[in-house]
Parts: sequence; structure tokens; C-alpha cells
Amino acid sequence: MAIKKNSKPPATLSHYDATGRARMVDVSAKPSTRREATASAFVALPRHVLTALPHNPKGSPLEVARIAGIQAAKRTSELIPLCHPLPLSFVDVTLRQKRDGIAIAATAATTAATGVEMEALTAAAIAALTLYDMCKALDKSIVIQDLRLDAKSGGKSGPYKRPRA
Amino acid sequence: MAIKKNSKPPATLSHYDATGRARMVDVSAKPSTRREATASAFVALPRHVLTALPHNPKGSPLEVARIAGIQAAKRTSELIPLCHPLPLSFVDVTLRQKRDGIAIAATAATTAATGVEMEALTAAAIAALTLYDMCKALDKSIVIQDLRLDAKSGGKSGPYKRPRA
Amino acid sequence: MAIKKNSKPPATLSHYDATGRARMVDVSAKPSTRREATASAFVALPRHVLTALPHNPKGSPLEVARIAGIQAAKRTSELIPLCHPLPLSFVDVTLRQKRDGIAIAATAATTAATGVEMEALTAAAIAALTLYDMCKALDKSIVIQDLRLDAKSGGKSGPYKRPRA
Amino acid sequence: MAIKKNSKPPATLSHYDATGRARMVDVSAKPSTRREATASAFVALPRHVLTALPHNPKGSPLEVARIAGIQAAKRTSELIPLCHPLPLSFVDVTLRQKRDGIAIAATAATTAATGVEMEALTAAAIAALTLYDMCKALDKSIVIQDLRLDAKSGGKSGPYKRPRA
Amino acid sequence: MAIKKNSKPPATLSHYDATGRARMVDVSAKPSTRREATASAFVALPRHVLTALPHNPKGSPLEVARIAGIQAAKRTSELIPLCHPLPLSFVDVTLRQKRDGIAIAATAATTAATGVEMEALTAAAIAALTLYDMCKALDKSIVIQDLRLDAKSGGKSGPYKRPRA
Amino acid sequence: MAIKKNSKPPATLSHYDATGRARMVDVSAKPSTRREATASAFVALPRHVLTALPHNPKGSPLEVARIAGIQAAKRTSELIPLCHPLPLSFVDVTLRQKRDGIAIAATAATTAATGVEMEALTAAAIAALTLYDMCKALDKSIVIQDLRLDAKSGGKSGPYKRPRA
Repeated sequence: MAIKKNSKPPATLSHYDATGRARMVDVSAKPSTRREATASAFVALPRHVLTALPHNPKGSPLEVARIAGIQAAKRTSELIPLCHPLPLSFVDVTLRQKRDGIAIAATAATTAATGVEMEALTAAAIAALTLYDMCKALDKSIVIQDLRLDAKSGGKSGPYKRPRA
Repeated sequence: MAIKKNSKPPATLSHYDATGRARMVDVSAKPSTRREATASAFVALPRHVLTALPHNPKGSPLEVARIAGIQAAKRTSELIPLCHPLPLSFVDVTLRQKRDGIAIAATAATTAATGVEMEALTAAAIAALTLYDMCKALDKSIVIQDLRLDAKSGGKSGPYKRPRA
Repeated sequence: MAIKKNSKPPATLSHYDATGRARMVDVSAKPSTRREATASAFVALPRHVLTALPHNPKGSPLEVARIAGIQAAKRTSELIPLCHPLPLSFVDVTLRQKRDGIAIAATAATTAATGVEMEALTAAAIAALTLYDMCKALDKSIVIQDLRLDAKSGGKSGPYKRPRA
Repeated sequence: MAIKKNSKPPATLSHYDATGRARMVDVSAKPSTRREATASAFVALPRHVLTALPHNPKGSPLEVARIAGIQAAKRTSELIPLCHPLPLSFVDVTLRQKRDGIAIAATAATTAATGVEMEALTAAAIAALTLYDMCKALDKSIVIQDLRLDAKSGGKSGPYKRPRA
Repeated sequence: MAIKKNSKPPATLSHYDATGRARMVDVSAKPSTRREATASAFVALPRHVLTALPHNPKGSPLEVARIAGIQAAKRTSELIPLCHPLPLSFVDVTLRQKRDGIAIAATAATTAATGVEMEALTAAAIAALTLYDMCKALDKSIVIQDLRLDAKSGGKSGPYKRPRA
Repeated sequence: MAIKKNSKPPATLSHYDATGRARMVDVSAKPSTRREATASAFVALPRHVLTALPHNPKGSPLEVARIAGIQAAKRTSELIPLCHPLPLSFVDVTLRQKRDGIAIAATAATTAATGVEMEALTAAAIAALTLYDMCKALDKSIVIQDLRLDAKSGGKSGPYKRPRA
């Protein structure tokens, strides 16, 4: 897979101090602004699993995965060591059935001094894992593909949009 | 990608009751036996990020990601709605630098009435997200690929080993 | 409301030591046996809210409440100070529409040295609160009624069944 | 029990999008203002339990329940799936002995873009469950009654006060 | 302070693999046996703070600290990265007023494949920090002294008892 | 140890209401300002443990302890009952090898209506406990000494700096 960079990268990793030690970025001096990020993942499902996914009002696995993703976004700073705790103003997760699997998209938003890329990615990841959990009795070989950031806005580094593959 | 099934799949999704409602599997009657599972993920990194990854005793990002993965495994049942809480007897995560990225492998083990596939997968996923978090200042387009179960042992369904691609 | 006692009560509160100090019961010497408990609650809903409850495959509020209740059961020992952490083998929550509201029932099971009454009650309580959360834009005066234990089995004190009202 | 509505209800449930899917409300555009909410519950206790409640400086069950309620309020967004994480500025819980049980009242406050009704209700619910936990050795049939919102202030929908029964 | 070792130390740190990498100890093959540990800490308080500590049935700071310690013990494996999650069968914390401060003692017990030293120590630490939190308006210079393991029993390494100072 | 007070203490404990009941301080009316706090602890290590501490890129115990401390700071309000949840803008922990042990220092910062003393202290405490956990196979008698606040700035009470011993 060819990875394309979005414009010029900064000269240094933000999470490291002068001695190369991994650390939390100090965002105390950054202004609180509106931030948004979207991320996605794809859960590849063979035909016999796609067919077995129940479609009924009492609880589709897609709905359980969606709730799990939303709840996980709110706990991102507990899971990712150098993430800041953030008052999220919005989280949403959608799961769409495609010909060969389920496409997951997650959105997170806040008004804060730092971005919500990790919140969107965590929501997509946990929604995908939850879907795997509910399908694994049928097929353990299901693969979660292409967990990635699709776009973000707000903050000093400005908007980012993943280039078309 | 061609997904190969491991032997014959069961006739039904385990997480659904007779009315199609998603639910936790009742493992009360299952014996407590030794269970183990391994999962993996690949974080594709372009050359300029691989080069920038600090290698020094004060804290490589691989080490932070490893700790994050281990801690996440212990919280799997909080994140995946229909997972059972389990007394994990072992969790380990390794991150190995490859030519075009970092290969993550996670192992979980328990002596319990149900398996630890989700614990291994959650450890791999959160380790990968943590690595992304620490590299995203250099390149937001980094993709987490192929989050999947590699093997599991123990339990009524017996051993599973992912077929070679 | 007339409260009926189930057989003869013990002479002392179990959670208190000889000096009257509240404390966790030491269950180290108790055998690990199968335990189960069921609890219930009733969310009284006026007609205009019952009518507005969406009924569609994309996510009924009853399904969100059900998932929330299951997840809450797993965190009971974090919420109730003197509860023991338990490896739950089963949790389920059902929500049934009645003429004047939603009846919630929760079941929890384990094989452990202590019972799961609090887990079943916590699941019912959080499912009820989640339902309130999703209906409160329509009517803030909704009341959660009669959160209570319905039955439990296992353990030295033997089975309990709530007397008919 | 006659439920009275407070003024005119809104036309739609706030937690649902155009397709009827349950989702978190996006509060990004709402101003941060002072919000407060109070909720209550009643734990009906028979005379022999009320008499047994220890009253001494080393730890009354009412005090344990009060602390549990305060701590639970801070975790509301982890428990209620579509709740926003909020920086609470105040939480308090009081338990008052009445002739036939314990009356619980909980208050929560914040300066944020959304209200704290669920935080007050969660505090009251967990305080009540904690009290049940400490009394259940004496009487398992204890019922938690009338968990409800009593008042809220702040926000676009303005103040709410529960009508007198 | 002279630190005395208890008998002969093992040749290696248990938390490291052959390459010196910190990791969780695999306890899968260890038998489940009764384990207990006690730990302590001392919160040095000047006279004017000791005098101000309220002594009344509505809630002494010692009681709040005690509950906080018990609850923290249950979350030890979330806080200490290489700790195993354990089904604790007992936790207790006591705070005793001394001439020049508060002596905190914590006990934890389990029947498991690994010990509860960290659970007892975490309970003592969080109880001490909670006491600090409630006294810091009077004196920020309060010091938590001598947080340490006092004794443990069970497990292959046998009983340990701290030598007299 | 002689404890010196920093200027004149306030007349009352802030965490108590008029009846002496421990409660959370209401910070609703306090302005959001920049706050910072630093805390420290000392883990006394005998020579044979200091020598055994692995020093290699794959993971020193000091690095694991550092990450544990940072993560714990973010969960302070879950651990300390009367603490407010805060959007931390920065947390850092350093561990420095001294002649007779490891000196731990922790810093926390926020822009909020209340201070971060407890966050800095919690980070130092959990880093120290994590270090103990990784060394206890060599020596169970290791003691964590002098867990204390070193300085704080911001807020109505103004800056505090621990007097020299």
C-alpha cells in the first residue's frame, strides 16, 4: 500500500522531549477551539457471515457495535497513555453493510486545546472488535482492515484530509 | 484479500438467543480450563517515521505502546459489551520493527470457562493506536492493517490456527 | 407498601464488624458455588412518550438501555463500595413494553464465593436510567419505580423469592 | 401514580437522528453555562432494619452510601451510553432517615454545554443500591422507590421543577 | 533508615524476560491458593490539623479515606501495569489516630494464583491520599510516610513478615 | 520530622459543611485559571536491587513506572472521592536514580476552577507503587518514603512552595 503524506511533516515527533523521552504534550497554552475528527475501519466478512447477521428490531450486532464504539471514545484517555482527557461534545459511529464486509466510520468533536483524532480512531477500533466478537463463533478468521484517520479539522496544524487511495 | 475459513463453521452465531436478540453467552456450565490466544496487527510506517522513532533507554514509543496494550487487555470486558470479565493469568505484547512498519503481536491466557480471543485482539489494537498517537505529528496518514486473531487454544471448539495467507 | 420479610432475618447486618464499622464481608472461607439473581425495575411512561419510542432496526432506545445494563453489571464492584469483584458467567437484561411503561428485568450469574444480587440490581438500575436519558427530552417527570430483587439462588442463605405483592 | 408533564413537551426525542437511530446529541454549538440538577430516591426500610442501622462515628451505612453516590456521579458518562463527559463542579448526596425508610437526595452542578440531570440521578441510584447492599443481610425485600428528577436549571430548555404529587 | 532484607532474595527480578524486557509474570501454571497481605502508611499531621479533624456521626474524614482505600484495592490491576486482575475475597482498611498523625493499615485477601501485596499497598496509598485531600486546606505540607508491605502469606515464596525497625 | 506550615492556615477544612459532614467543595463560582502542581516520593532501594534494575532499550522498570504514573493522574477523581474531574492539560513523571533509591517527581497542570495537587500526588504514588511491584521479587521490604506536595501555583490561595527541610 502506498502511503501518501499530507503536505510537509513537522521536523519532530510531538510526544518526545529533548532527551527522546516519550511524554504528554503540554497543551496549557493552546487556545480552546472547535475540533473534529473522523476515522474508519473495515471488517471483512465472508458471505456466510454477512448472511447470518441478524436483521431485526431486537438487536442487530451492528447496533451493539455502534454503542460500544461511542462508549469507547469517551474512555480514550484511559487507554492511550499520552492522550489528554477531553470533554467530548459529540461522538457518532455508523456501520454500513458492503458487498464484502462492514464499513465503520466514527466521528468525534470537542471544544478544547487538543484534537480528537485518537477518540475517533478508538471508537472505530472498538466498534470493529465488538463486531468481531459477535461473529467469531461463525468465523474466527475475520480481519479488521485499514483502521485509519480520514479527516480532522481545528487546531494549529489546520485541516487534514486523507488523500484518495 | 481471500479469507479462508478454519474447518466447518457452527450453524449459529453464539451471541444471539432464539429471537435474534444479541446477548452474553451463559458460560456457567462450562468447565474452567486453560485458554490462550494470540492476535496481531501491523502499523505501516513510511521511512521518515521509522527513522524518527527514538531508540534510547529513556523511552521508546514501542515500549509505551507495549504497556498500553497490556493494560487494555485487562479492561476488555469493559469495552466489548458481551465479553465476560476474566481473571487473566498472562498478557504480553511485542512490537517488532520491520522494513515498512511495526508488527504487533499480543498473547493472553487464563484458566476460565471462556476464551481470551478478545483480550488478545484488544491488546493488539490499543498498542497499535498508541503507536499511531505517538507518530501522528509526523504523519497522520499512518494505517493500522490486518488486526486479527492468529491462534487460540483451549475450550470446547478446540485449537484454531490462522491459515497461511 | 407492605414489605414482607422472607423467613427469619439474621440477627446482624453482614457488612459490620464488632465495633459497628461498615466493612467488606470476608468470603475467603466460603466455597465457590453457582449463584444467580434476578432484579427488576419499572419505568413509568406517559402515552405520548410510549408512542414516540422509535421501533426500527437502526436502534431502539430499549436496545441501548439493554446494552448499558449488561455493561453496568460488570462494573458493580467499582460502584458499590463493599461489593466483591466477581467473574460473572452471565448477564442479561430484558425490557418489555407494558400499557403504562417499560418493565425491566435483569439476571446475573456466577460461580463464586458470594452472590450476584447487586450485579442484577445495578444492571436494572442503569438500564432504567439509560431509558430515562433517551426519553427526558419528551418528559422530564418520568419516574423509575420499584427497583428490587426478585429472586436469588445459591449460597449458604439458600434461595430467595420475592413474595407476591 | 399520576404523572404530570411540566409545560409543553418538545416534538421529538433529542437522542434520535432523522432515521430513528439513537445517537449522542451534538452539543458543540451550545454555550457553556451554569447547570444544576437535583434528583431523589426513597429506600423503604421495615422497622427491624431501621433499628439495626448502626449509628456511630466509625461508619454509618448512610455515610458509605453517600460517598458511593458522589463517586458514581463522576462516572455517569461511562455508564449511560449517550451521555457527554462533563467537568462536574459540585456533587452532593444526602440521606435522611424517615419514619419508614431513607430519603436520598442528590445534587450535581457544572458549567458546560449540556445538563447534569443524569449525574444527579446516577448519584441517587448508586447511593440507594449501596444502602440496599449493606442492609440486604437483614431483609432482601427492601425496595428502592421513586428514583426521579426533582429540578434542574440552566440550558436552553430553562428551569424544570417537578410538580407536587 | 536501615532496610533489612527478609531471608535470601531470588537471583532475578520476576517481571523481566530473558532480554530484560519488563513483562507480566505468567501465573497460568501456579495453583490457586489462599493469599493475604497487609500494608501500612503513616500520614503525619501537625497538632492544629489533628484537632480540626471532625469527629461526628455525619462523616469523619477517616471514614471517607477508609472507603476510598477499599475501592482502590479493587482497581489495582488497572493502575499497576503488570498486576494481574484478581477476584479479591476481602479488603479492609483501618485508620487510627496517633499522637502525631494517622496510622493506616490495609489488608487484602484472595484465593488465586498470585499474591495481593499490590492490592494492600494500593489501598493504603489511596486512603492516605484521600486523607491528605481532606486536610490540605489546613496544611499543604502534610507528608505521607513509610508506605510499605508489612506481611504476606500464601504462595510459593511463603510467608513474609517485615522485620522490626 | 518537623512539619513547617506555609503561612497562615485557613480557619476551616474546606471539605466539610456546617454540620461537619465531609463533602465536595462547590467550585461552580470559581474562575477557570491556569493551575499547576508538583509532587514527589522516594523509593528507597538497597544496593542489590539498584544493581539489578535493567538498563536497556527494551524496557526499564523506570519507564513502566513513569507511564503508570501519567495514566493514574488522569483517573484521580475516580480514586479520591471528593476530587473534581478535571481536563488535565499536562502530566509528567520523572524517575531519577540516586545513591540509595529512586526519586520520583510528578507534575500536573490544568486550566480549571480547582487545583491539581491530588493529580500530581496520585501520579507520584502510583509510579512508586509500580516500581515496587517490579522490584518486590528481589526485596519485599522496599519502602516508599515522603510522598508529598512540593509546589503549586494558581487559584485563590496563591502559590505554595514546600519549605526546605
